[in-house]
Amino acid sequence: RRSFSATPRWNLQTRDMNEEHLSSLRVNQCRLLEDIHYTCQWGTGERWGDAPTETGMSRLALSDSDRQARDWFVETTESLGCKTTIDSMGNIFAIRPGLKNDKAPTFAGSHLDTQPTGGRYDGILGVTAGVEMLRVLNDNWVETEYPVGVVNWTNEEGARFPKSMVSSGVWAGSISLEDAHNLREVHPGTATMASELARIGYLGKTPSSYKSIPMAAHFELHIEQGPLLEMANKKIGIVKGVNAYRWFTVRVQGRDAHTGTTDLKSRADALLTAAKLILHSHRLATANNALASTGILHLTPGSTNTVPGSVTFSLDIRAGKDETVDKMTQLIERDFPAIASGSNILNSQEGCTPSLPLSVSITQDFNSAAINFHDTCISCVKEAAASVLGLEKVDALTREMVSGAGHDSVYASKRCPTSMIFIPSREGISHNPREFSTEEDCALGAQVLTQSVVRFDRLRAE
Amino acid sequence: RRSFSATPRWNLQTRDMNEEHLSSLRVNQCRLLEDIHYTCQWGTGERWGDAPTETGMSRLALSDSDRQARDWFVETTESLGCKTTIDSMGNIFAIRPGLKNDKAPTFAGSHLDTQPTGGRYDGILGVTAGVEMLRVLNDNWVETEYPVGVVNWTNEEGARFPKSMVSSGVWAGSISLEDAHNLREVHPGTATMASELARIGYLGKTPSSYKSIPMAAHFELHIEQGPLLEMANKKIGIVKGVNAYRWFTVRVQGRDAHTGTTDLKSRADALLTAAKLILHSHRLATANNALASTGILHLTPGSTNTVPGSVTFSLDIRAGKDETVDKMTQLIERDFPAIASGSNILNSQEGCTPSLPLSVSITQDFNSAAINFHDTCISCVKEAAASVLGLEKVDALTREMVSGAGHDSVYASKRCPTSMIFIPSREGISHNPREFSTEEDCALGAQVLTQSVVRFDRLRAE
Ligand SMILES: NC(=O)NCCC(=O)O
Ligand SMILES: NC(=O)NCCC(=O)O
Repeated sequence: RRSFSATPRWNLQTRDMNEEHLSSLRVNQCRLLEDIHYTCQWGTGERWGDAPTETGMSRLALSDSDRQARDWFVETTESLGCKTTIDSMGNIFAIRPGLKNDKAPTFAGSHLDTQPTGGRYDGILGVTAGVEMLRVLNDNWVETEYPVGVVNWTNEEGARFPKSMVSSGVWAGSISLEDAHNLREVHPGTATMASELARIGYLGKTPSSYKSIPMAAHFELHIEQGPLLEMANKKIGIVKGVNAYRWFTVRVQGRDAHTGTTDLKSRADALLTAAKLILHSHRLATANNALASTGILHLTPGSTNTVPGSVTFSLDIRAGKDETVDKMTQLIERDFPAIASGSNILNSQEGCTPSLPLSVSITQDFNSAAINFHDTCISCVKEAAASVLGLEKVDALTREMVSGAGHDSVYASKRCPTSMIFIPSREGISHNPREFSTEEDCALGAQVLTQSVVRFDRLRAE
Repeated sequence: RRSFSATPRWNLQTRDMNEEHLSSLRVNQCRLLEDIHYTCQWGTGERWGDAPTETGMSRLALSDSDRQARDWFVETTESLGCKTTIDSMGNIFAIRPGLKNDKAPTFAGSHLDTQPTGGRYDGILGVTAGVEMLRVLNDNWVETEYPVGVVNWTNEEGARFPKSMVSSGVWAGSISLEDAHNLREVHPGTATMASELARIGYLGKTPSSYKSIPMAAHFELHIEQGPLLEMANKKIGIVKGVNAYRWFTVRVQGRDAHTGTTDLKSRADALLTAAKLILHSHRLATANNALASTGILHLTPGSTNTVPGSVTFSLDIRAGKDETVDKMTQLIERDFPAIASGSNILNSQEGCTPSLPLSVSITQDFNSAAINFHDTCISCVKEAAASVLGLEKVDALTREMVSGAGHDSVYASKRCPTSMIFIPSREGISHNPREFSTEEDCALGAQVLTQSVVRFDRLRAE
């Protein structure tokens, strides 16, 4: 702890901090935004505006640009006095010592990987806000009771390797290291997570486990990625839980055929069938108050005048309740083979020529049950928000909410008290280059994150 | 004409040939099949059976394997006494001199390129049967009245560069050389037809035109690629014309969005819309006695948890009559934007949550009007079939038909009398590795082709 262990200006210990002390811990908005945009030089995506920072991001997990962002994270947190550990999933834990170091650190964490056409805030805000928290603690010569950490989780997006939050999942013991290491890129290629971790030099020796790197708590600042805070004119979302979701790969097997010589009834058109299935998944979602989405579709052979013989597509099902996702799964498993074999469920064949039967297989790739966060952490966030926004305004400017997106906090919550802080996303747009949150909101979120962590540490000191 | 100009064993001239002479011109079945399978070493595709020849083909136009097959064609036809010319589209014309060489040759022709998952007969049969015809003429010391040629047309399939029959189209003056040279690969890449022609050494100096290389007639032997001959127990199809077809690229523009935080009504899901459009194209095809097929679909960004913001797909529309293809085009141009913007045409939205409007653009890539072949050529094929099959059996074993697939004969027919000969395809399967025709049927077809060409030459001599 280079800068910190020198002659302290004001060696404030969290156990002694009162509300005034807490509210004096001020995030530096410019510095935070500089970290965000500086690190977005690695994996810069599509431009959507004229300003230098008006581009999206395309920093797939374990790519060369991810490696550069990771290197920055390691160097920066070490220069701020942290010790860094890399585990067997490439998760990077930066730990700032406390007064007592015999107990687990309280962590702030998120991820530096992005969608292929993602934005500058999803994940990145949470990690850079964690770094800003370290700077604020150092600037104010704060000595926490127990260590405080910042974690960068690997492949949270699930965009390159098709399990989201996979590395916090391994850490939590919910996903096996072997399954994770063997995950292949979603777009045909030969890379696995293990090969890419090794290639970029982030295959750490420390076992990825809550046993090797325990956490006292996990706080995550994130953009909402939906429209609710903005629509309600709120500044801070106090996240009480996360919705359930499940990912499938659907394979439709038909027969390659000539488009000019094969009449409609003699076809086994895998793409036409896939179109019916995708449409049907939306009908089921509508009827069951769930979400259904297909983001990836590959067909073969891919020729204008050949009816495609096979199609593979992803299916992402979400709902507030596990039972709804279970029901959607049952309906899909019941209806998809029926539609492929030619039954006219909900007009899926209406007006179309009946064709030869096709076969369908459905594989589950990933499952994340609905979870509730921890009351103590939620209270820390609430109190931090009240302190940052002011007691008079806190009710008007915050709302409790449940996340529609998955986050590493889901798996963290299985092994330690956890909660999240949301800030508004412009027009609710995310997983899109235009994703945007204001500088003020980013700083406000970082401020609430910093206070939440310190409050939790203070609670432990009591 | 090496082997031919030496002391002739029996220098039979077509002008002197009677029916007995004609029927003595016998195709060598083993030799023909050897040429087919020998040349299928270049671009061998997926295996479907245990026998050495039970694989499909994957020899995309202007690939390295196409170059190897072309080299074989040039060497073989030259060794059989032909002079070869390569034009600016890489079409290869092999010409065997006749008694008089002041008039255009009579051609047999087809193509050596295949679909990405094609078979061993589509196109390949026509070219190798042309080579077998040359061998038969040589073996029998036949001197034709005018030259006889064999042509290998470039990129007939349209599978790699998205205009089928593009090089016979340039030859016929129906497609501009510039448009053809600038065609890009359908699967994202940087190659154009011009760059690939140059790369494999088949960018000839002779202008691709019926003016530089005129044809007296064009005969093409081809597998039917449909089930009609087999179902009717016929051996030879006498092809009187070809159906109309048109290719489009449809682009759907929506908005990338998070699959977990974007409710169904706030989405502009380009893949869901594409699914509705593809389904609708089938409904229109069913209602109008046409065919509609989508063989290529690309989406971006391609991530499980991102609603795709854009989708591009091919649309292949076919019918017996030009008016039907015109009507389908009008309906598609009317309905596609309406469906994308949210109108409930033919239940396309039934049961689905209405979404944000999307935009659609439709570009026509290729158009081939219905055509009728030439009576003289059709008669030559009929007479040849009667001679080969026997007068008593010809009615039972042949049928007149119209081709559902496009062929280079379509464009050839715009500049010279043309007709085609079909042989049965097992189960009507084509554009599939399992495409198959029996050895006997291949030889029978080659026999009818040879006689048709000689009969046409004899007609010219009269
Ligand atoms: N926050 C976020 O976008 N996470 C990706 C996992 C998911 O698909 O919800
Ligand atoms: N014969 C053949 O398959 N030609 C390709 C052009 C078409 O699509 O009809």
